[in-house]
Amino acid sequence: MIKKYSIKELLNKGKFFINKKVLVEGWIRSFRYSIFIILNDGSTIQNLQIVLSKNKLDKTIMKKITIGSSIRVIGIVKKSVGKKQYIELQSLKINIYELVNSDILQKSILQPKKHSFEKLREQAHLRFRTNIFSCIMRIRHHIAFCIHKYFHEHGFFYLHTPIITTSNCEGSGKMFQITTMDFKKNKLIDYTKDFFKCKTYLSVSGQLEAETASLGLGKVYTFGPVFRAEDSNTSRHLSEFWMIEPEIAFYHLEENINLAENFVKFVIQYTIENSTEDLIFLNQYLEKWNKKKKNYLLEKLELILKFPFKKISYTETIKILDQEEKKKNIKFSHPITWGMDLQSEHEQYLVDKYFKKIPVIIFDYPCNIKAFYMRMNNDGKTVRAMDILFPEIGEIIGGSQREERYDILLQRMKDTNIDINKLWWYLDTRRFGSVPHSGFGLGFDRLVQFITGMNNIRDVIPFPRTPKNADF
Amino acid sequence: MIKKYSIKELLNKGKFFINKKVLVEGWIRSFRYSIFIILNDGSTIQNLQIVLSKNKLDKTIMKKITIGSSIRVIGIVKKSVGKKQYIELQSLKINIYELVNSDILQKSILQPKKHSFEKLREQAHLRFRTNIFSCIMRIRHHIAFCIHKYFHEHGFFYLHTPIITTSNCEGSGKMFQITTMDFKKNKLIDYTKDFFKCKTYLSVSGQLEAETASLGLGKVYTFGPVFRAEDSNTSRHLSEFWMIEPEIAFYHLEENINLAENFVKFVIQYTIENSTEDLIFLNQYLEKWNKKKKNYLLEKLELILKFPFKKISYTETIKILDQEEKKKNIKFSHPITWGMDLQSEHEQYLVDKYFKKIPVIIFDYPCNIKAFYMRMNNDGKTVRAMDILFPEIGEIIGGSQREERYDILLQRMKDTNIDINKLWWYLDTRRFGSVPHSGFGLGFDRLVQFITGMNNIRDVIPFPRTPKNADF
Repeated sequence: MIKKYSIKELLNKGKFFINKKVLVEGWIRSFRYSIFIILNDGSTIQNLQIVLSKNKLDKTIMKKITIGSSIRVIGIVKKSVGKKQYIELQSLKINIYELVNSDILQKSILQPKKHSFEKLREQAHLRFRTNIFSCIMRIRHHIAFCIHKYFHEHGFFYLHTPIITTSNCEGSGKMFQITTMDFKKNKLIDYTKDFFKCKTYLSVSGQLEAETASLGLGKVYTFGPVFRAEDSNTSRHLSEFWMIEPEIAFYHLEENINLAENFVKFVIQYTIENSTEDLIFLNQYLEKWNKKKKNYLLEKLELILKFPFKKISYTETIKILDQEEKKKNIKFSHPITWGMDLQSEHEQYLVDKYFKKIPVIIFDYPCNIKAFYMRMNNDGKTVRAMDILFPEIGEIIGGSQREERYDILLQRMKDTNIDINKLWWYLDTRRFGSVPHSGFGLGFDRLVQFITGMNNIRDVIPFPRTPKNADF
Repeated sequence: MIKKYSIKELLNKGKFFINKKVLVEGWIRSFRYSIFIILNDGSTIQNLQIVLSKNKLDKTIMKKITIGSSIRVIGIVKKSVGKKQYIELQSLKINIYELVNSDILQKSILQPKKHSFEKLREQAHLRFRTNIFSCIMRIRHHIAFCIHKYFHEHGFFYLHTPIITTSNCEGSGKMFQITTMDFKKNKLIDYTKDFFKCKTYLSVSGQLEAETASLGLGKVYTFGPVFRAEDSNTSRHLSEFWMIEPEIAFYHLEENINLAENFVKFVIQYTIENSTEDLIFLNQYLEKWNKKKKNYLLEKLELILKFPFKKISYTETIKILDQEEKKKNIKFSHPITWGMDLQSEHEQYLVDKYFKKIPVIIFDYPCNIKAFYMRMNNDGKTVRAMDILFPEIGEIIGGSQREERYDILLQRMKDTNIDINKLWWYLDTRRFGSVPHSGFGLGFDRLVQFITGMNNIRDVIPFPRTPKNADF
């Protein structure tokens, strides 16, 4: 039996295959001079050139071939005479799986020409076949894989926190409700008759559950879907997205900050090294179609690796912004006052202008603009929060040291109207050998968006979920 | 600054640390002879023995110490005089993070004695601190990690298929509905006013979306949560569980079967090699508390690796069961007829008795008992389905070659009342260079249950979701 190879395997180890008989399968990307079939199988952005022979069979096939069609080829690997590729495949036998009807093809995004990202989204079931989207999907895979690799090698345990939750009080935005009730029949709505005997929601974060796990296992991380029912139609928001949330017992904020910087640098380094071809393709694509400057994407990524991230407190941040406003005659539309939530305009100015595109870590935020579970500082005004701001996209990581002191946590929960009857178990962990601990959250899709340089987050996830849109 | 180590690091590289000064943190598991603190930090099932010094500080601490308390210890690593461990830590300085109140401890599962699994579940937020559950969580991590590792190394791309879906017609069981509507206010229920402008559900499977991805990327796999709203309160079912679904373009059923066998053997082999200590602990636990025979767990796992899985068609299976019934005077409560769905009693007989606990792969099932997307055989009666049956737990993997022929798929969808208006995109992939392709699904939690030997699936997932139960 002739062995089957992916196009990636053939091209990567080209020398090894010269004069060997192999089997490949894929989809026709183009057909040139009635003799060259350009084949892709999804394993790589690169294509394999098939050289048709002059035998009868190949001649019959030649007449029928359409772009997009699926074929199976047995052939001999040869050193290519062309300059674009090192090897090519001299066909011995071609089988057609399916020929694509040209009329159908022309209406689809598989027609070889430039299509808008909007159009690609409308044919989400076919966009895996396009260069641009297959690139992004392969890069997305490598990013996901190296996240697991990083945590695994650093002694973290992967944790599956629940998606369905009864608690709707974490304060991280609006939630979707889950039910199996038939509302037409249940005119008196009685949720004790619902599937879980009570109202349930889709989780907005696995953090609280991950904390309880870290208080036994030491280091854990989640990597799963979370949900926000906010009606925000922007290029940076999804109603369903994947989040990574490490939680570490015995970690203070400083260790948490170092972990986050180390982690995100590892991910970018790994992706540069392991998705090189796809990143180069994207780089060229962005230069050509988005008018980005030469080498834009790779330089942007390398800048993240080059310097230590800037680390300043919220109070220092406010001082800097205030001074800049006065000194440089800049006018922010939201005036700078201590206690305010930083807006995009402030974050952008700070990262892009003031720190010249080096990521910034801001810590010790006012407690009033942060969640109840963050550890109170001795000043009674600020909490041990930290956000990492990136150029272009702003906040990419948000984290904190968690409040481990029972009494203070209880008071904070009361002050912020958290339902203690629902979160009793969270509070309870502070009575059984409570320890300093910390963690952070990273929106996976936004990281993929940053690394691939896409304008719209809907173009980095297979089937995006946004308000009014759950098609496919 | 003195470097901090996990107990796992210290114990694994004991020799290297002799006479070095280190910092460790953890929770007190026990306190013996007023001098030995047994410390655990979750990184391993093993504990570190701390030897208290006779200085004043340690003497004060001695009097206060309670089980479950959290401490920070600086000490010198010494070769242990005891036989149970190679090294121990001679304390120089101990800080207490929090002392646990003995009354509180006594009511909790942290009180060192045997607790029922039911009781552990009632204190799910604390069970990460128990030996048994921390063991299972670490093993769960290694299983999850090696699943990513296997697919990554075999050229698969990890795919995030959507959790929120509009299609409720895949026939894989009852679904949860998602909404943001306030039913009290909306007396006339109009789902076009709901968040996604239509009725939406929690996905029961990512297969159909994964198929479309494989038809561009070649090899993909999902690993994410899926949901079943069935009111079944058994030890093998969860309402929310994690599923792995590889889909591979150009794969026929035989290649799919080989992949599944290879994959599941790799996972078990990897887990044996990388979770050795935890598996040995579980093995002893099951011997002691569940009265399992000596070395039960490890032998069960090794039997999976030892032989090729048995491969027989559904038709042969029926013949065997029929013959066995006649020959051996067995009486199945469901009579054996061709076309029937195999019941637990048949599966158990086949695997446990007939094939002596070697896993069995049954293929070519009658089309009437299988889903619409499975490829029809030429006999017009059977489809290219395959199920893998394991000893003890029955079906662990279900898969098939998918129907790639447009007309036949369309007819099957019509015959089985599939809403083509909702699944048009699935059907549509068969017009753009359709190819033979295959895939399978594996319930992750059930695999963890099998590997850890737990009776109840609720004991292998952090916060189980089952009918009437979404606490925590």
